[in-house]
Amino acid sequence: MSQLETRIKETAERVNAALDGLLPKAQGSESRLLTAMRYAALAGGKRLRPFFTMEAGRLFDADEGHLLRAAIAIECVHTYSLIHDDLPCMDDDDLRRGRPTLHRAFDEATAVLAGDALLTFAFEFMAEPATHPDPQMRCLLIAGLAKASGAQGMVAGQAADMAGEDIGSDLIAVTRMNRLKTGALINFAVDAGALIGCASDAEKTSLSRYAHDVGLAYQMVDDLLDAEGVVRDTGKAVGKDKDRGKVNFVTVLGVDATRDRVRMLADQAKRHLSIFGPRARSLIDAVDFIIERRY
Amino acid sequence: MSQLETRIKETAERVNAALDGLLPKAQGSESRLLTAMRYAALAGGKRLRPFFTMEAGRLFDADEGHLLRAAIAIECVHTYSLIHDDLPCMDDDDLRRGRPTLHRAFDEATAVLAGDALLTFAFEFMAEPATHPDPQMRCLLIAGLAKASGAQGMVAGQAADMAGEDIGSDLIAVTRMNRLKTGALINFAVDAGALIGCASDAEKTSLSRYAHDVGLAYQMVDDLLDAEGVVRDTGKAVGKDKDRGKVNFVTVLGVDATRDRVRMLADQAKRHLSIFGPRARSLIDAVDFIIERRY
Repeated sequence: MSQLETRIKETAERVNAALDGLLPKAQGSESRLLTAMRYAALAGGKRLRPFFTMEAGRLFDADEGHLLRAAIAIECVHTYSLIHDDLPCMDDDDLRRGRPTLHRAFDEATAVLAGDALLTFAFEFMAEPATHPDPQMRCLLIAGLAKASGAQGMVAGQAADMAGEDIGSDLIAVTRMNRLKTGALINFAVDAGALIGCASDAEKTSLSRYAHDVGLAYQMVDDLLDAEGVVRDTGKAVGKDKDRGKVNFVTVLGVDATRDRVRMLADQAKRHLSIFGPRARSLIDAVDFIIERRY
Repeated sequence: MSQLETRIKETAERVNAALDGLLPKAQGSESRLLTAMRYAALAGGKRLRPFFTMEAGRLFDADEGHLLRAAIAIECVHTYSLIHDDLPCMDDDDLRRGRPTLHRAFDEATAVLAGDALLTFAFEFMAEPATHPDPQMRCLLIAGLAKASGAQGMVAGQAADMAGEDIGSDLIAVTRMNRLKTGALINFAVDAGALIGCASDAEKTSLSRYAHDVGLAYQMVDDLLDAEGVVRDTGKAVGKDKDRGKVNFVTVLGVDATRDRVRMLADQAKRHLSIFGPRARSLIDAVDFIIERRY
């Protein structure tokens, strides 16, 4: 395992342990709901968004405890979005992270409610004094998280994705959809680290550009894996977008041109971090990890 | 129209006008989502929760602009909960406020996403400096709203309601379910006014007890209307709970005993406000308005 993979794994383990302690234990008439929340939130996953928050914040020696709490709130929002996206009325997926999706393992109503509860929990958690002693900082984190997730961010992206070919099948439409659907939250994960680290404006801009490019490359690799991958590696069904008449980078650009763009974005992402010198090693290595992943 | 009804109507009009200006206008690939959010959020309704926030805050001469913003965030959470509760996998309702429910007027995916977006918007809006100059106050409002709405509040109540007779059919189980499902958010609507008004601990306790009793009485009247009401008055289907084997106050206590309890709770709610003297006139009159409503 590379140094980077060890670091990603460490962050994932901290996030998992913290979430396990934080999420309410199953009990009473809500036990089905609470069990479902834990099933989804503790299903593993790479925890890349928390990794971005932690590593961006570490550039500025920000408090690890504060970074971890922001990272957890962001991961809860990510988890809720996966639950709702998998619903029969959305992407109707049966597999996620190698296990039955939440509405398959439980039922549809419980999946809707568990998603709602995880989204709500993210804001409750972020608002608590333990996240940061300065309430002004907590408000900025809450507003940023909400903006990245809502009707002008992630939810808008999912709505555009549902609209399928109606949004147009050109590169501009697909890029915009992906910026909203996955890019906005990845961007906020990096931005949150910079925010907590009290980065300068120039540093914030560099990190934001890095996140922009990494987010797009990440989605392109997702689309390549969907076109070429195997269920065993990805832990979810493959070849879905084409079957459903959905547009994505591969359906618009083809496999080869998509691969070219991934490499271009990866190089560009790394260059944005040059102002940080060798301190940004983890974030730079993460780019290669993301574009070379098979799952 | 009574003085109280005029006052309720005034608050509703301010909320409607503000929401109309605040919610993003339909445009681009998200126009379906944004139109759906407006359809649900601007569908009318009594806006009782905003009324409670405004009137509780007015007892302490709190800033009307701050109260209105908190009230709007709370109403957005209420609206999202109605959208998700109406979904086919939940209560499967076709009518709401006399019009087709959101998933009927649009589609199921749009209804899930519009609910998600309204919930997210509530927290974004609450976190903005315009809600209150003190970020500490905004964090308290956000944490309180999330706690009342999430896995230990409203969402838990809906989960218990979905469980139907599995939660038990005794008065304790039904009371607890309703405290969570509708009581928690009504309570927070009143508490938010007290919080913004910097009420003393004794004043906060009195208002909280009032909200507790009003919330229960409100739900009992809802159950009575479901058992006896007509679609024309309520704007939604009636007789549903019995048909679905769901437990509620009327199925557990019967009509007469439920009516008795409504009267008892109403008297008790008013008594909790005695420490405020005649200033609490609106909140006291609201009790009679709520228990005598036919819709």
